[in-house]
Amino acid sequence: MEAAWTDFRDIVGKENITVEKSELESHAGSSWSSHPAAPGDVPFCVVKPGNTAEVSAIMKICHERKIPVTAYSGGTSLEGHFAATRGGICVDFSRMDKILQLNAQDLDVVVQPAVGWELLNEELAKSNLFFPPDPGPGAMIGGMVGTGCSGTNAYRYGTMKDWVLSLTVVLADGTVIKTRQRPRKSSAGYDLTRMFVGSEGTLGLVTEATLKVTVKPQHTSVAVCAFNSVRAAADCVFKVVGAGVPIAAIEILDDVQMKCINDAGMTSKTWKNAPTLFFKFAGTPSSVKEQIGQVQTLAKKSGSTSFEFAKSEQEKEDLWQARKEALWSVMAQGQGDDDMSVWTTDVAVPISRLPDIIEETKDEIAKSGLLGSIVGHVGDGNFHSIILYNKKTQHALASHLVHNMVKRAIEMEGTATGEHGVGLVKRDYLPHELGADTVAAMRRLKLAFDPQCLLNCDKIVRVQPPRQGEVEEW
Amino acid sequence: MEAAWTDFRDIVGKENITVEKSELESHAGSSWSSHPAAPGDVPFCVVKPGNTAEVSAIMKICHERKIPVTAYSGGTSLEGHFAATRGGICVDFSRMDKILQLNAQDLDVVVQPAVGWELLNEELAKSNLFFPPDPGPGAMIGGMVGTGCSGTNAYRYGTMKDWVLSLTVVLADGTVIKTRQRPRKSSAGYDLTRMFVGSEGTLGLVTEATLKVTVKPQHTSVAVCAFNSVRAAADCVFKVVGAGVPIAAIEILDDVQMKCINDAGMTSKTWKNAPTLFFKFAGTPSSVKEQIGQVQTLAKKSGSTSFEFAKSEQEKEDLWQARKEALWSVMAQGQGDDDMSVWTTDVAVPISRLPDIIEETKDEIAKSGLLGSIVGHVGDGNFHSIILYNKKTQHALASHLVHNMVKRAIEMEGTATGEHGVGLVKRDYLPHELGADTVAAMRRLKLAFDPQCLLNCDKIVRVQPPRQGEVEEW
Repeated sequence: MEAAWTDFRDIVGKENITVEKSELESHAGSSWSSHPAAPGDVPFCVVKPGNTAEVSAIMKICHERKIPVTAYSGGTSLEGHFAATRGGICVDFSRMDKILQLNAQDLDVVVQPAVGWELLNEELAKSNLFFPPDPGPGAMIGGMVGTGCSGTNAYRYGTMKDWVLSLTVVLADGTVIKTRQRPRKSSAGYDLTRMFVGSEGTLGLVTEATLKVTVKPQHTSVAVCAFNSVRAAADCVFKVVGAGVPIAAIEILDDVQMKCINDAGMTSKTWKNAPTLFFKFAGTPSSVKEQIGQVQTLAKKSGSTSFEFAKSEQEKEDLWQARKEALWSVMAQGQGDDDMSVWTTDVAVPISRLPDIIEETKDEIAKSGLLGSIVGHVGDGNFHSIILYNKKTQHALASHLVHNMVKRAIEMEGTATGEHGVGLVKRDYLPHELGADTVAAMRRLKLAFDPQCLLNCDKIVRVQPPRQGEVEEW
Repeated sequence: MEAAWTDFRDIVGKENITVEKSELESHAGSSWSSHPAAPGDVPFCVVKPGNTAEVSAIMKICHERKIPVTAYSGGTSLEGHFAATRGGICVDFSRMDKILQLNAQDLDVVVQPAVGWELLNEELAKSNLFFPPDPGPGAMIGGMVGTGCSGTNAYRYGTMKDWVLSLTVVLADGTVIKTRQRPRKSSAGYDLTRMFVGSEGTLGLVTEATLKVTVKPQHTSVAVCAFNSVRAAADCVFKVVGAGVPIAAIEILDDVQMKCINDAGMTSKTWKNAPTLFFKFAGTPSSVKEQIGQVQTLAKKSGSTSFEFAKSEQEKEDLWQARKEALWSVMAQGQGDDDMSVWTTDVAVPISRLPDIIEETKDEIAKSGLLGSIVGHVGDGNFHSIILYNKKTQHALASHLVHNMVKRAIEMEGTATGEHGVGLVKRDYLPHELGADTVAAMRRLKLAFDPQCLLNCDKIVRVQPPRQGEVEEW
């Protein structure tokens, strides 16, 4: 490693390589990750390349010297994605943060991995364009490609998988490939683009992405609607979807979540402590008005106890703000106690099973004595549980709640993760969800592209079997 | 092979295996394929399994005995996808033609590979649902997965890649895997589903597919609008897309194509022999009305010379019918001469380059003396050229026109195929389009899943290099 250090320094310059302890730790985990950082799980050094050629040169060294590599951009992932469980180096993309080329008429944009989606949208807005995937704040394109993220816009616009046209990728041996040129549609060969999206840095390092963008809708609005039960809210969703109302997003927040938002006092209004649906509408001005009317009628039929829709831009912001504050408001409940932490997990099920799994999960959380809220992208059958727990005394309890929620999702023909990805935390659920042969097929793909297992090894699928007792019983 | 025949007979029964010459030929090519069938490129026999277990048993035999396999469902692909260039057997899925399970509330449906998309939509319509990908008539789910097809609905709804939730696949050694359960969204591991979509039967045999479906729009309509030039029509498209009008489809047909439709006399009205845009609108009733008004205004600004929109269901059918008749109307021009054939090819470019490539291609076709029309999914930058040629005397000329069109697309940062796939005909364009290293990565993927090269070998990427002179000069 010492000899490699010299090689890396020659590639990126001394100022772009660090072995400072705090840097190593911040590049291997975060306080909001559900994977408890083990003290040894840090890289040997953090290397900050400035372009694709430097990344390629770094990978050639790592390939020759068999040095493990983790990739780092926004660092907002939740499941231990960038824990350096094998040491090695962390490739930090922070210097590669440019929007390289906006092709407005072609509706695409070429970016480097450390461009944040929020900043990207600020830039795109100047051309009346936007990029729909909206994961957590701070997430960057590199990691968004890695996890195959999504967010509230996925119901209407699809996930990251649908918005990446092409990737420049440095493979495990330093070879640079570009998966496509810039057509919006292609069936020319295997879909390497989508193979890399969601591969969590285990198949290659993304150094450039060509993203689809779209034109901002002519008009948008928001409505918020409370119900007496999660089941009544879900019934409303089925009615709205079934009627073909072309809504842009539907989110559910449960009574616990709404109470946290009220307690936090960060929104301009006070809400009912009840299961609540948040609708986003987009389209031509008159179609938005028509959609709101249709949804209001259907909500009433499902027993809604309130229905408010935005009559101005300000009201629209105010109404959607409660949805945005969900995570912070739960965190706020633990404020003042350094041992309190928040575990955010996500699963997805076929949408008809959503009321069942939410009810069962809420029951179990309530019985556990922990505070846990539910926030869901209900139109996709995808939801998060945000559980507040004491790191020192309640980790096992929180972990067990999460385990049962994931097991429930899998048994309902769902998935261990709808949008957060696998990392270290969800990998042992894959055999239950998909079967051992499917996981073996995934492992075959991994080893075809990274036979030495240098790239974020043992994430997504284990290459080595787990130690006895390491995996929670099914 | 004789010994294998006995094994296959024991698996599927004597009545489901054939060596009849006409069957072998019809399972290796078609008159509308752009790959001229070589007499030797037929399978040894056609085997018709009835379920996944039988397909697995067949593949185990093939794996043991190193027998090449091509898969066959609708047989409508165009680029030599199922030519049996290595002999072996053809697995015909015609007995696996059931819709297994419609989960209406979950908006998904489980089907076997020989279900046609038209039949599927007839069934779904009974539940007010539909499946958007709309390739050529006769196409079936197995082949639609294989080519990663799309069609006129792709602009609004995306391609086949966006509508497959999960696949049951028999791998080269007979192992059966299922890529997912039924959640609408998942980031649990590598996206094997999308790896198989577009893999043209080279990575595994699809025996079951879980497809997303969607609710039919509340209201639809159609408008048709003529222009004096392709460039004016394209300008209109840019204006409509740029204004964020949420149209469902935009198709362009050039003057040659409109003349063929008029000559064929198969539609209820006579059209201008001019470049024409066909718009499909979908949404709530008032939003459709609003969209039509917006498009009419923008079309006028781009110099439209006519604008007709459907005022009834019948008129909607009548207007869209001309689009549907495009291929047949060109074929009709060659009627009565058995040597006349139609070469349908497709490319895609970034949408800003569409007027350039269409104009240059039209010019070259006109100069060649052949009849060739242009039909395009203009909102995706994807278009087809339909060239009428004499198989005996004009094959080289037609081939050269197609070559130049593909080269042009690649040089404009586009792709050799937007939706038809690679097969045999487009495979030597991939190194030009993507670079040798990217093609090598595709080959690595192929060999990871099919190391003996049994599955539709040498399609998409060559495993063996071409013979000298086999590939047209760049």
